[in-house]
Amino acid sequence: MEIIRTVKEIQNISDNIRKSNKTIACVPTMGYLHEGHLSLVKIGKTKADYVITTLFVNPTQFAPNEDFDKYPRDLERDSKLLSDAGSDFLFVPSANEIYPNGYDTEINIKGISQSYEGLFRPIHFNGVATVVAKLFNSTKPHYGIFGQKDFQQSLVIKQLVRDMLFDIEIVVAPIVRETDGLARSSRNIYLSQEERKLAPTLNLAIHQATKAIENGERNRLAINEIMKNYIENTKAFKIDYASSADATNLSEPDFFESGQEIVLLIAAYLGKTRLIDNNIIKI
Amino acid sequence: MEIIRTVKEIQNISDNIRKSNKTIACVPTMGYLHEGHLSLVKIGKTKADYVITTLFVNPTQFAPNEDFDKYPRDLERDSKLLSDAGSDFLFVPSANEIYPNGYDTEINIKGISQSYEGLFRPIHFNGVATVVAKLFNSTKPHYGIFGQKDFQQSLVIKQLVRDMLFDIEIVVAPIVRETDGLARSSRNIYLSQEERKLAPTLNLAIHQATKAIENGERNRLAINEIMKNYIENTKAFKIDYASSADATNLSEPDFFESGQEIVLLIAAYLGKTRLIDNNIIKI
Repeated sequence: MEIIRTVKEIQNISDNIRKSNKTIACVPTMGYLHEGHLSLVKIGKTKADYVITTLFVNPTQFAPNEDFDKYPRDLERDSKLLSDAGSDFLFVPSANEIYPNGYDTEINIKGISQSYEGLFRPIHFNGVATVVAKLFNSTKPHYGIFGQKDFQQSLVIKQLVRDMLFDIEIVVAPIVRETDGLARSSRNIYLSQEERKLAPTLNLAIHQATKAIENGERNRLAINEIMKNYIENTKAFKIDYASSADATNLSEPDFFESGQEIVLLIAAYLGKTRLIDNNIIKI
Repeated sequence: MEIIRTVKEIQNISDNIRKSNKTIACVPTMGYLHEGHLSLVKIGKTKADYVITTLFVNPTQFAPNEDFDKYPRDLERDSKLLSDAGSDFLFVPSANEIYPNGYDTEINIKGISQSYEGLFRPIHFNGVATVVAKLFNSTKPHYGIFGQKDFQQSLVIKQLVRDMLFDIEIVVAPIVRETDGLARSSRNIYLSQEERKLAPTLNLAIHQATKAIENGERNRLAINEIMKNYIENTKAFKIDYASSADATNLSEPDFFESGQEIVLLIAAYLGKTRLIDNNIIKI
């Protein structure tokens, strides 16, 4: 696996791959990789000839009060994991490469970014959209592979690609979980041992709501209440949202309908750690 | 010359050109072409193997009170001119191709867009940046060819490409003028015969200022005054701005310095027609 640090180099590599009539899957990550990320690399290898994994902790998607400084970083560990997983290239640019001196351009996505994560992290998705567009212009892939754990992010990226006419197919891979159901995330490292024991609560709350839906519950607020109550019972979480919506556009009808694809979405603080989880259900 | 109407088709064509190790120059236009546009096609042919001219009157760069509806359009005339000029492809998408249903994404460029044209046409450059990014994602060129007549636009595009890491070289071609000095523009068609006779005033005002600079004038406000007075003398124009600035970043020092590249910029209404002109001088 080759490690590349400059935009010009990775663009060159991509051009050469394309000229030899081969294809590229890009896996954008913020590093400190887990099995979820590695599953994206493996999916990339089934879709394309080459996988370029990008590793960039993007400053513009963190608010000043968020965890940009303490976000876990371990390039050596990540390189080895990626190499073993079959990634052909690792693109690990500096902040200066991605945000050259005097940068002054931002991509703004409206509708789909406003609710949920957008409410609690108002600058977040513009930062994500902007950096992903840049990573796409750098790696020039045929495919972009993303994880379902960041569900709303996957909708934002799809909107970005559709609206900006990127010639890229977005693939969203299922959530990878720990054995007790906790959605794998780089931020799980922040949890104390006590907190780690409580963390699967969110997934269990989602299960409760899923069962109710399978048993015929269609009232959106009732579904939300099930999850909210389950979480609040532990007296250990501070909930940002525990909600349900249409999985294609996050619309919030009073009642869901037969055949509708919906998503259950939770974001909650366990101590200082903000955890998110979701599940997609077809009614 | 092939005429292409869909994004998918032009992306395919571009991919095939690139796979055969050839290069592409993109010439974005809003149609109703004149010698200025055709010079861009010719320059494109010197830079790349293939020229793709795009023709799209972009709704999002016109304010509601501007001339989107009356902007001159003549596809048959334009096709013939382009074919004769050597353009290999003409990409002429519908508004729906470029702005698919539910589009919700915009590129915002700050600093360089705020002054001059940005003051009088506040939404304009975001519209330009957004559509040019889409045309670049459609035509996937190695070069983008633009005219100096829209000087500030050329700076905005350079900022866009630099900030978004587009692997595209921006080429800015000199202004092409009528024999009496009027900068060629699709909007010149709006001028009455009377107005057409007065239109070269802007270029003459620029000449006056240029002469003063060559004779040692370095005071920015004095330079601006020369142009303003010259234009106001005709009692025929309403001036938006007649100004001078650093040509790389539009900064406005009190005094210009030896070796500095500066730009003289004018925008003024002649009747209902808004004319712009500029000149770059190295002191």
